[in-house]
Amino acid sequence: MYEGAFRILRALGDGRSLSRDDVVRAAGEASSVVREVTERYAKWFEIEEGRIRCSDRGLAALARELVARRAGQTPDSSWREAYEAIAAERSAPKRALDQIFITSGTAVRRAELLIEAGDHQRGLLFLGDDDLTSAALQLAGAGRKVTALDTDDEILGILARNAAGRGWEHETIRHDLRQPTPKAMRARYGAVFTDPPYALEGFRLFVSRAAEMLKPDGRLYVCFGHSRRASERGLQKQRVLTDAGFLVEAVFPDFNEYQGAEAIGSRSALWRCRVTPETRPLVRGEVDGELYTSRSPNS
Amino acid sequence: MYEGAFRILRALGDGRSLSRDDVVRAAGEASSVVREVTERYAKWFEIEEGRIRCSDRGLAALARELVARRAGQTPDSSWREAYEAIAAERSAPKRALDQIFITSGTAVRRAELLIEAGDHQRGLLFLGDDDLTSAALQLAGAGRKVTALDTDDEILGILARNAAGRGWEHETIRHDLRQPTPKAMRARYGAVFTDPPYALEGFRLFVSRAAEMLKPDGRLYVCFGHSRRASERGLQKQRVLTDAGFLVEAVFPDFNEYQGAEAIGSRSALWRCRVTPETRPLVRGEVDGELYTSRSPNS
Repeated sequence: MYEGAFRILRALGDGRSLSRDDVVRAAGEASSVVREVTERYAKWFEIEEGRIRCSDRGLAALARELVARRAGQTPDSSWREAYEAIAAERSAPKRALDQIFITSGTAVRRAELLIEAGDHQRGLLFLGDDDLTSAALQLAGAGRKVTALDTDDEILGILARNAAGRGWEHETIRHDLRQPTPKAMRARYGAVFTDPPYALEGFRLFVSRAAEMLKPDGRLYVCFGHSRRASERGLQKQRVLTDAGFLVEAVFPDFNEYQGAEAIGSRSALWRCRVTPETRPLVRGEVDGELYTSRSPNS
Repeated sequence: MYEGAFRILRALGDGRSLSRDDVVRAAGEASSVVREVTERYAKWFEIEEGRIRCSDRGLAALARELVARRAGQTPDSSWREAYEAIAAERSAPKRALDQIFITSGTAVRRAELLIEAGDHQRGLLFLGDDDLTSAALQLAGAGRKVTALDTDDEILGILARNAAGRGWEHETIRHDLRQPTPKAMRARYGAVFTDPPYALEGFRLFVSRAAEMLKPDGRLYVCFGHSRRASERGLQKQRVLTDAGFLVEAVFPDFNEYQGAEAIGSRSALWRCRVTPETRPLVRGEVDGELYTSRSPNS
């Protein structure tokens, strides 16, 4: 569901009728957004003498969305052991692909966050998934198709086998991001999640590919870290996001914990960004050269 | 206290001795930061056979810092009514100065966040304080000198009177930010908090002045919002922060709630940024023209 519509429905979910200004205050959405949503989804609202109320159809839509987001439920991470078993199918991290695996606690946190934000329902693509976050999301009960793109056959095989055995609606795509984005994948996804290579070239490429694959109202989740003593490296990546026209919506410090990665403190932040009218790839077409570096994060 | 040192002391605060890699994992600080801190504050640590333990002096420093940050205490916002009484001393918001007041709930959240982050102890400056956040911080028991700079004599008078009557260590400075930054205020503050004008010119100026006033390891707290339909306005401000070399450390969406401001949804985000070696003012010296706009945020 469009996030602005969700927030307005939720503000009216107790059945009150509110003035437009009160809807603004309760939803935290601008009056122009309130106007747009009440016009675009007219059947969800009853408007009388300038006061807005949720219709039964609006309440039904809200209920479906809240259930999908698990609102009011205690997070259930009883699937964590199943995730650990799947993760154990991997061989050692492939340093040539900058693979550094997250902890299973991080997999749980990522799945919970994506579900609470409703992004599992918007057409969610993982750009690179050696962390098997897409599996965590399915184990958490995403209940919608999830797509994972990777260049590593081992990762894709683990995902495909588990999807077949467990009945997940899961799409796995073998693709090297140095190759141009397949036409069928452009502007198609409501959300992209990526924990891109440490090297700046790889980071820029992954962010650019995401820009091509996201819909105009899409969201980008991107993980990156840097040592306190190397803040300029973090700033380079912030500059890439800004240049690519992604608007930062939330930054969760220390969200991701890694097995290893002592050079950056074994943790990284999760940035959630929004597509804007200025979002564009900084890199197009085929790309040569190394994305993944055998150089250490501190070199 | 330097944030990296705090996180390392806290990781060792249970008295364990840990390997360097385990300190990295527990503190979430890079191995190079662990090395720097254990050398710089050698008396806080005992190092034996490559394992690190907190000394009694280190534990004492940690205890002082944790108490100052109120760790383990339930936040006490019993002072909220006192804040409301002080806030009621103000006349109506001066639209010519883009004044839009926060709710008292937001004042409580700001004070709690600044205290938990330890920024009330690092030399904290408010650039503009029509919200009287510095008073909220004192009421919350900051216990250190806080500085508030404003051009509005009414605001400064309210702060000075309450400081005198309540025994706060409070400095009030009358200054128009269009004038050059006073020499004595340059590179002097460990943290700056600002809720700058909505207009981009004003935003750029406030961020630039903060860049001049912050120490090399300082932090900038800056509030801004934008409608979901005007994401490019948010992006312009993100670009200012990036160009000024501020590294985003955390973004708290919908953190600030305002009385009014329906055009942006009555809320704004709080961004916490770090000074980097590239931090620099985008505007220097005296500035002409209007910072504050009588144009509405949506025009």
